[in-house]
Amino acid sequence: MATTQRIEAFAPASCANLNCGFDILGFALETPGDTVIIQKAQHKNVIIKKITGDAGKLPLNPDKNTASVAVKYLLKKLNIKCGIEITIHKNMPLESGLGSSAASSVAAIYALNNLLELGLSKMELIQYAMMGETVASGEAHADNIAPSMLGGFILIRSYTPLDIIQLPTPKDLYYTIVHPNISINTKEARSILRHNVALKDVITQTANLGGLISGLYLNDYALIGRSLNDVIIEPVRALLMPYFNEVKDVALNSGALGFGISGSGPSLFTLNKSKDSALVVAERMINVFNKYRIKCMSYSAKINTTGAVS
Amino acid sequence: MATTQRIEAFAPASCANLNCGFDILGFALETPGDTVIIQKAQHKNVIIKKITGDAGKLPLNPDKNTASVAVKYLLKKLNIKCGIEITIHKNMPLESGLGSSAASSVAAIYALNNLLELGLSKMELIQYAMMGETVASGEAHADNIAPSMLGGFILIRSYTPLDIIQLPTPKDLYYTIVHPNISINTKEARSILRHNVALKDVITQTANLGGLISGLYLNDYALIGRSLNDVIIEPVRALLMPYFNEVKDVALNSGALGFGISGSGPSLFTLNKSKDSALVVAERMINVFNKYRIKCMSYSAKINTTGAVS
Repeated sequence: MATTQRIEAFAPASCANLNCGFDILGFALETPGDTVIIQKAQHKNVIIKKITGDAGKLPLNPDKNTASVAVKYLLKKLNIKCGIEITIHKNMPLESGLGSSAASSVAAIYALNNLLELGLSKMELIQYAMMGETVASGEAHADNIAPSMLGGFILIRSYTPLDIIQLPTPKDLYYTIVHPNISINTKEARSILRHNVALKDVITQTANLGGLISGLYLNDYALIGRSLNDVIIEPVRALLMPYFNEVKDVALNSGALGFGISGSGPSLFTLNKSKDSALVVAERMINVFNKYRIKCMSYSAKINTTGAVS
Repeated sequence: MATTQRIEAFAPASCANLNCGFDILGFALETPGDTVIIQKAQHKNVIIKKITGDAGKLPLNPDKNTASVAVKYLLKKLNIKCGIEITIHKNMPLESGLGSSAASSVAAIYALNNLLELGLSKMELIQYAMMGETVASGEAHADNIAPSMLGGFILIRSYTPLDIIQLPTPKDLYYTIVHPNISINTKEARSILRHNVALKDVITQTANLGGLISGLYLNDYALIGRSLNDVIIEPVRALLMPYFNEVKDVALNSGALGFGISGSGPSLFTLNKSKDSALVVAERMINVFNKYRIKCMSYSAKINTTGAVS
């Protein structure tokens, strides 16, 4: 009997560091996302066969690419000896704050699980996909990986042990992502954060996080909106982003429920109660950037509740 | 037609500063609580007629007692000219971390609303009852007032404007309160807190708060338990409390889902999945204090989901 030699999987981009949920909260996007093909090889190595859509920027070295690092980690941990060839079709901008590296790792690990018929659950696969993030950011973060794998809104309650909570997704909730063509380095965006936070800001932040999570459980769009208020991270990272306050004001005055930085930027997100609202908000945000001759890409769709698929 | 001249109301004690929900999260106790009687008077003043159960410690001066301050504030705000006599039956220890002052304010305002047939909702009454807290703690806090008025678990998302979220109460959730006979002053307990918090602790705290709130919505007792982990306030306030770590270890090793300081102490609380568990935990915690010749009061019951009643 011929066994499967090749599996293709898609994993969505994601919006992490969700406003008052810095480092712990994110959601998956319906679009964009990466497609990864995993093939069994005659040789014994893990290699990157091909990458498209990255304009030659991503490493083909299997020890430096997030997808192959994750694949190698899984094979080693489970003591599986198998040559693997990886093809990555990147369908999103790099270093955009949309979890590009996570999407590649997730798609690769999800495809590998199917190819080798390992029978691991998505929740179990997360720990392997996370290892890819050590290449991108120096740490094994789950805040893009888990939404990309599982879909929906995801809370990372703890890393030791890993404790991931799937939050509900209100059915009429749409996002807008606007990615201005400016460059923000993830490590830099993290390095400018203050190491200490005023206790009064901690109280405000926890209160808003509680409101946001309640809003998701209650399908309370207004509560979601008024809870999207980050008093700790956004005021600092906004300093790195040109025209931030103007774009934010325009988004909120155009009907967005709430606004924030996606990941560590430069992409910005809004949550909206309808697709029409999401499209209007996107257009007006883009108009601001265009006024200053900054080009943008944008995506407006429902929250992705599927995660990785094959 | 004879109008009502006298209304009696009960308002429960409450557990505020709920662990990782410092300043924003609390729940109401089934017992203990205060009973307040509000009577119309011939004179034009608001007076405290009588207080029982306080061993003479509470002020009869209507400008210094939480209940009368709240009553005077409501009458002034709504421009009502009416003499009122207030009788307070305190049925709980003072300065115990159980929201004693809040219970008196809530019961008084709730009774006044009924007596004068004002038709205000409990949510509307909270702002008036809060004014009593300015006497007790210098600020108009809602984190004891709102649970005492509404019952259940309450999130204070914002003060400006006041935004109070009623969270669900899992039906098998019981609390234990152990009040050791030691003295902690609320203002002192607040003054020792650090004004700055490490960002990594903010991340841990928000993650746990998200887990706790999710646990309440999901009826997930284990999630509630593992989220009850306060890395910011408890480590500091524990320094004020003798035998804190020993009592905490005993509580968690005796089956409590989670443990924390009630209010600013000295009362300690646990959440438990059954009444039997709550009673066992209470007994073992008390045994530790008794070993050191510290007497205790304790209360074990279901979460109060009714709030103020007449």
